[in-house]
Amino acid sequence: MNILITGSAGFVGSHLVERFLQDGHSVIGVDNYISGQRQNTALFLTHPRFQFLEADVSQGIPYTGETLDWVLHFASPASPPHYQEFPVETLMVGAQGTQHGLELALKHSAKFFLASTSEVYGDPHVHPQPESYWGHVNPNGLRSCYDEAKRYAEAITMAYHRAKGVDTRIIRIFNTYGPRMRADDGRVITNFVHQALRGEPLTIYGDGQQTRSFQYVDDLIEGIMRLMGVTYHEPVNLGNPTEFTMLELAAVIGKVMEHSIELEYKPLPSDDPKQRQPDIGLATNILDWKPQVSLQEGLQNLVSSIDYSLASS
Amino acid sequence: MNILITGSAGFVGSHLVERFLQDGHSVIGVDNYISGQRQNTALFLTHPRFQFLEADVSQGIPYTGETLDWVLHFASPASPPHYQEFPVETLMVGAQGTQHGLELALKHSAKFFLASTSEVYGDPHVHPQPESYWGHVNPNGLRSCYDEAKRYAEAITMAYHRAKGVDTRIIRIFNTYGPRMRADDGRVITNFVHQALRGEPLTIYGDGQQTRSFQYVDDLIEGIMRLMGVTYHEPVNLGNPTEFTMLELAAVIGKVMEHSIELEYKPLPSDDPKQRQPDIGLATNILDWKPQVSLQEGLQNLVSSIDYSLASS
Repeated sequence: MNILITGSAGFVGSHLVERFLQDGHSVIGVDNYISGQRQNTALFLTHPRFQFLEADVSQGIPYTGETLDWVLHFASPASPPHYQEFPVETLMVGAQGTQHGLELALKHSAKFFLASTSEVYGDPHVHPQPESYWGHVNPNGLRSCYDEAKRYAEAITMAYHRAKGVDTRIIRIFNTYGPRMRADDGRVITNFVHQALRGEPLTIYGDGQQTRSFQYVDDLIEGIMRLMGVTYHEPVNLGNPTEFTMLELAAVIGKVMEHSIELEYKPLPSDDPKQRQPDIGLATNILDWKPQVSLQEGLQNLVSSIDYSLASS
Repeated sequence: MNILITGSAGFVGSHLVERFLQDGHSVIGVDNYISGQRQNTALFLTHPRFQFLEADVSQGIPYTGETLDWVLHFASPASPPHYQEFPVETLMVGAQGTQHGLELALKHSAKFFLASTSEVYGDPHVHPQPESYWGHVNPNGLRSCYDEAKRYAEAITMAYHRAKGVDTRIIRIFNTYGPRMRADDGRVITNFVHQALRGEPLTIYGDGQQTRSFQYVDDLIEGIMRLMGVTYHEPVNLGNPTEFTMLELAAVIGKVMEHSIELEYKPLPSDDPKQRQPDIGLATNILDWKPQVSLQEGLQNLVSSIDYSLASS
């Protein structure tokens, strides 16, 4: 198949490129490096079935090649420090960026795949969150540039599906980690791992009792592949429902790093979601999917990849 | 002042134009007539301080004149049958349209005023709705093209305020009625009034016990004027908190029309909000504002205006 991916130089995007190339497909990556990394493009540049377009998909997708089978829209700053640094760009890639992807899919009679997020649930009052839960999001708070951009992206994807017949998929990605996350990603796993690697205390916001679920990137990629293989247009949660408090996560990090861990407590940021856990009943039903990689195993892989990149630099 | 209004040929937009001209300002109206009406432009075309640009503000605002003091973004299909007929256009005027207005305001160092909506509260779990309530909205349902577009519009307005220093205002307009509403508006007051004028039974969806609050357009315009006179960036509800059930509304219509009213019951549409009532404590505090026009008085004005337009056509 001929597959175009926006955000190909991002964390999840680059794993998708890798998987598609492994599976024998041709891949066109698009990124403007606002949060993606050039080294993630460099990984594939010599591959005969990979081509790259440096472009801001909010301005348009300058693709003029052969007919596409899929357009996957994964471009967006996705971590709070990045999207709060680029609030307008984040809003635009959710609106104009998604629409440019939908228009490209429409033109090529290609299928369209939207990477949405568990952030559409906001600070949820329902726990765990099924896809039918409408969420609890502040429409104009500091995180709204990301949350509302993704809710809008879902709305316009469904509008193109309903009104223009585009064959669409929507996933809501819960916290995901793995190799190629940016060191300055700002989310707890990278923060903890890099703090631990530098021998610094791990920063706990609030009392550390807030829980998160952590999905290893290979599980997410497998879920995406499976959803591409079925016809289902409503949003599908992809995440790991096993919950850990921040304090438990810190303990697993200590185990993986094989050294003792100190903690440093700081106040909880405003609008920080307190609790988020996927209900993956739908994905299990329609995709026969559930996460396979344990937190300890995933963290081992992540830590090894960072050691490797330090050693090779 | 020099004031640009998008959606100037719409129901609320045309009342704003009228008020600004009365108050001695110069007004540039912009509309593409997707839901606005040419006769609303015709009302002012001969006025020396009015000019009109026919344009789709989602594509850009082609204004090149003197420095603006205000940009007011009121363009959008606003009634369910209209925005469901134009879901993509509705999404675009909330995203690209709002952003073009913000960019124009930025360029002119003008203030920016966003018309948001009580629809951002969705099908609320809190009653009445204060501005601090985050709402209960289906991000990908049939109404999401409007609700999420407006939530996005709020988010990008606050992003331009926070990140680029634009002096912004946001109102959330609750059900508003008055002269110049489209006969095919599709909302209950116009439906009832036109059914009653035609001597038809009034259509009640569900059991008619769902409540709505109805704001007369002059009250809304007064609230807008007052908010333009203060500095306050967070959203402000403008609506009439007095609630009527659909059955009570039908009875007031009967009183105004001075003839007996028959009712016809139909099933409730999916995603129809059950209950919506503004908490106007904030507007009362910061604007010393509250609605002045009773439902019966407002309906008298509306019915008179329709009689007049029928008589004059």
